[in-house]
Amino acid sequence: MRKKLLGFILLPALFAAVISIPAMGDPLPSWNDGDAKSAITDFVERVTTDGSPDFVPVPERIATFDNDGTLWSEQPLYFQVIFALDQVKARAADHPEWATTEPFKSAIAGDLEGLMKTGMAGLAKVLGASHADVTADEFAASVNDWLDTARHPTTGMRYDAMVFQPMLELLEYLRESGFKTFIVSGGGIDFMRVFAERVYGIPPEQVIGSSIDATFEMRDGVPTIVKQGKGLFVDDKAGKPAGIYRHIGRRPVFAAGNSDGDLQMVQYTTVPRGPADTSPRFGMFVHHTDAEREFAYDTPSHIGELKEAAALAPDNGWLVVDMKRDWKQVYPD
Amino acid sequence: MRKKLLGFILLPALFAAVISIPAMGDPLPSWNDGDAKSAITDFVERVTTDGSPDFVPVPERIATFDNDGTLWSEQPLYFQVIFALDQVKARAADHPEWATTEPFKSAIAGDLEGLMKTGMAGLAKVLGASHADVTADEFAASVNDWLDTARHPTTGMRYDAMVFQPMLELLEYLRESGFKTFIVSGGGIDFMRVFAERVYGIPPEQVIGSSIDATFEMRDGVPTIVKQGKGLFVDDKAGKPAGIYRHIGRRPVFAAGNSDGDLQMVQYTTVPRGPADTSPRFGMFVHHTDAEREFAYDTPSHIGELKEAAALAPDNGWLVVDMKRDWKQVYPD
Repeated sequence: MRKKLLGFILLPALFAAVISIPAMGDPLPSWNDGDAKSAITDFVERVTTDGSPDFVPVPERIATFDNDGTLWSEQPLYFQVIFALDQVKARAADHPEWATTEPFKSAIAGDLEGLMKTGMAGLAKVLGASHADVTADEFAASVNDWLDTARHPTTGMRYDAMVFQPMLELLEYLRESGFKTFIVSGGGIDFMRVFAERVYGIPPEQVIGSSIDATFEMRDGVPTIVKQGKGLFVDDKAGKPAGIYRHIGRRPVFAAGNSDGDLQMVQYTTVPRGPADTSPRFGMFVHHTDAEREFAYDTPSHIGELKEAAALAPDNGWLVVDMKRDWKQVYPD
Repeated sequence: MRKKLLGFILLPALFAAVISIPAMGDPLPSWNDGDAKSAITDFVERVTTDGSPDFVPVPERIATFDNDGTLWSEQPLYFQVIFALDQVKARAADHPEWATTEPFKSAIAGDLEGLMKTGMAGLAKVLGASHADVTADEFAASVNDWLDTARHPTTGMRYDAMVFQPMLELLEYLRESGFKTFIVSGGGIDFMRVFAERVYGIPPEQVIGSSIDATFEMRDGVPTIVKQGKGLFVDDKAGKPAGIYRHIGRRPVFAAGNSDGDLQMVQYTTVPRGPADTSPRFGMFVHHTDAEREFAYDTPSHIGELKEAAALAPDNGWLVVDMKRDWKQVYPD
């Protein structure tokens, strides 16, 4: 009877607390016990404990995550570029002129070195051929088809299975602690939105990325969004805080990246606005140190270079996660 | 004892149902009983009743609202334009050249007719002088100051008190029914975000509006967003579905406006994508019919013209709300 009565009294409190207290047990089971894990859990506890001087009200609990190299792998090339190359190959038969014209010639041959030699202008052409002048629905369908059929060249895995289990747990832990989780990535916004909800639990309205203009028209009486080949916004480096300001309109409390492309997002999140700004903030970088289970790279690197941010990390109190040391497991089972 | 036991059994069910069942009692007390009110409540009941053929899962419950003329008044001029004029007046002393140069001369004199004669180019200059080349923090502070001090020329009210009580109830009703409510307005995104959370309960990340480019820099070591005088995106007419696609990435289930500027948003939301698209959608327009309690206008009108959308409403099943007939009360007490 006493137990029942206690249950009766505690029940409402338990339900009311759902938002501010994470599930019991270890919220980050794929993280090894140690400084990295406890830095995260200590921070979350501080900002979610009512009455703590570091308490952050729920509406302000905004967490932003880079995608490539932070939530999923990015080697040997950003997966979206591999998607674009596959699209170009699939359409090559309709474009006989591509067989002799760069960057398409290299793209079709799978000659990445040749493609790289065509520079950003070449890469832009490849992305344009696969991302522009299609309707929003056609584009989403082509990404879904590709995810279902394409396999990673060295792991043989589905690309959307090469996500980091410890980061999935971190996303969920933050959400259980009342955070809204956002993706803020140099990757294409429309590309990521196709799988972000299913894979990361992040709805499309919380995905921010690079974008091109999209226009609306009634096409034969059907409301249609068409992706245009212009108006490129690059959501990388200084573009990330700009993208956060435009989409979220509020400074994050927590930001995670893996490369110098995330430096400005982490600065925007964590660097004090003045002496009076003592509000708690968390910045972290995932350092790819595990050549065996994933990939090992930092600087110099053609993708995901981590140099300047790593140098600035100690003075700024940013956590640098050592994948090899800090993660029990890389990919989900 | 029996009563207590029942409470014990029902309690978890009650808490679990918070998201899908609105508060008991009349969710729209400022709406007169009648077709408009029951059209709304019938729709919400259909899409939130588990097992109903029209059931919509919570993540897809997106509702978009125009702001000017839909959530608050917009006469005699969009309130943001009045803000811009006030800013120009306040800065006139620093710009002696404005005394003799249009559009500033008319703006400072409060000569709206003269200002209108300078056309969109003139209006853009006035907006530019008050909205560009300031930091995000400076801009937000100036909007807050203005809201605190400015009063509407005919009602004498605070501008942010001239919001529509029936629409506040509708926003809250939809949120209690599991909807995410968004503003999608031709108004400036940074202007609306200053008060949308406090006044409408809509957080900044759910406000979409017209925008100019914003850039990020570390200014003397302080992370700073600066609003630029270029890159104008007009979130009106066909720009509204484009803005929804870019910010939300998902088709709304419910859209509300008051003018032809909202036509494309309501089409994007409600017009079927094909014969198989039978998913339930709701479109509505607020018709300003109440010269006594608010303003009466539709067509022709220099602001908020409602003509094409009204003509298309019957065939499309859109609700046209007659403010005078359907609303018990216009502004909050």
